[in-house]
Amino acid sequence: MTRPFLDFWFDFASTYSYPSAMRIRPLADAAGIDIRFRPFLLGPIFKAQGWETSPFNLYPAKGRHMWRDLERLCADLALPFVRPDPFPQNSLLAARAALAVPETKRVDFCTALFRAQFAEGRRIDQPDTIGTILTRLDIDPAALLAAAQTDAIKHKLRAETTEAQRFGVFGAPTFITADGELFWGNDRLERALSWASRGI
Amino acid sequence: MTRPFLDFWFDFASTYSYPSAMRIRPLADAAGIDIRFRPFLLGPIFKAQGWETSPFNLYPAKGRHMWRDLERLCADLALPFVRPDPFPQNSLLAARAALAVPETKRVDFCTALFRAQFAEGRRIDQPDTIGTILTRLDIDPAALLAAAQTDAIKHKLRAETTEAQRFGVFGAPTFITADGELFWGNDRLERALSWASRGI
Repeated sequence: MTRPFLDFWFDFASTYSYPSAMRIRPLADAAGIDIRFRPFLLGPIFKAQGWETSPFNLYPAKGRHMWRDLERLCADLALPFVRPDPFPQNSLLAARAALAVPETKRVDFCTALFRAQFAEGRRIDQPDTIGTILTRLDIDPAALLAAAQTDAIKHKLRAETTEAQRFGVFGAPTFITADGELFWGNDRLERALSWASRGI
Repeated sequence: MTRPFLDFWFDFASTYSYPSAMRIRPLADAAGIDIRFRPFLLGPIFKAQGWETSPFNLYPAKGRHMWRDLERLCADLALPFVRPDPFPQNSLLAARAALAVPETKRVDFCTALFRAQFAEGRRIDQPDTIGTILTRLDIDPAALLAAAQTDAIKHKLRAETTEAQRFGVFGAPTFITADGELFWGNDRLERALSWASRGI
């Protein structure tokens, strides 16, 4: 019997993806569900619907609520929270690096990068931020960052973004089960896990 | 000591306001919180940010997720659900009528109207739909519908919508506590009630 699994689609710059990234592993482990961290870029998806930046910047009242809501949410979860500056961060290098990292270390890399951005206020577009994490994971930073800029990885990230769009992803985080059920938003994580494990 | 209270801001056409309208009274009663049902119009708020219809119509992928999500949500809550046609419904008459209804019957009126639309597939812009509910509440439909079209009520609804906007409301449902804390979305109802009762 195969274990149930859940795809976790996210953009490193996405605010609500931070609590999901911090929560998903223990929840999935407890439920016996395999998870896949699937970084993609929201930029092209937003552009396709006419947005040149985050809707939280385009719609100030929505943005004000999101920052306050995230602050409350992180306090409830006892997660440190620093508002990224600038927002949104450019997540291109981070997403490419995540795809270049060996699969066995990808979850650790991604959660560490979310923590660097949202708990420590570091910029994820800086090779230094990424390099520090790679070193801690026993990955050579120079080699990995070079790999992240190869055509193979660039193509892989474009393909992932296209696949997300094809599945109907319009924001992040998004959770998709093996049978194609799509759940959008950090507050749908538990429901997505329950769907993945029981198929309902 | 005054009882804590929570304002429930909604538009009758708002999909996620339906489960909130069905859930809020028992939850607030259990927590000892007074609630106020405050209908307003999302239309002018959407127009101010350049939208001529619901964002669920403007952004099809977001709309597809919302319908599926609402279907799952209502199933989980054992709430009947019929997709309104057309969507969004014109909620002007309904909102005016709700403000004309005596305060002691307003919650009953509003929940019945949500049920008519989302559980029975009735159109809320039809005086008949509204009239049937008024009759069940021992309110004379002709007199109430006439009152709903007076300048006093029209002005009241405009003032409510302006107040919502001033508070930072950008969507529905929105919950606002006595100390001005704003929570957007059906999935924030429990958190809003807990804030209202404990002030945190």
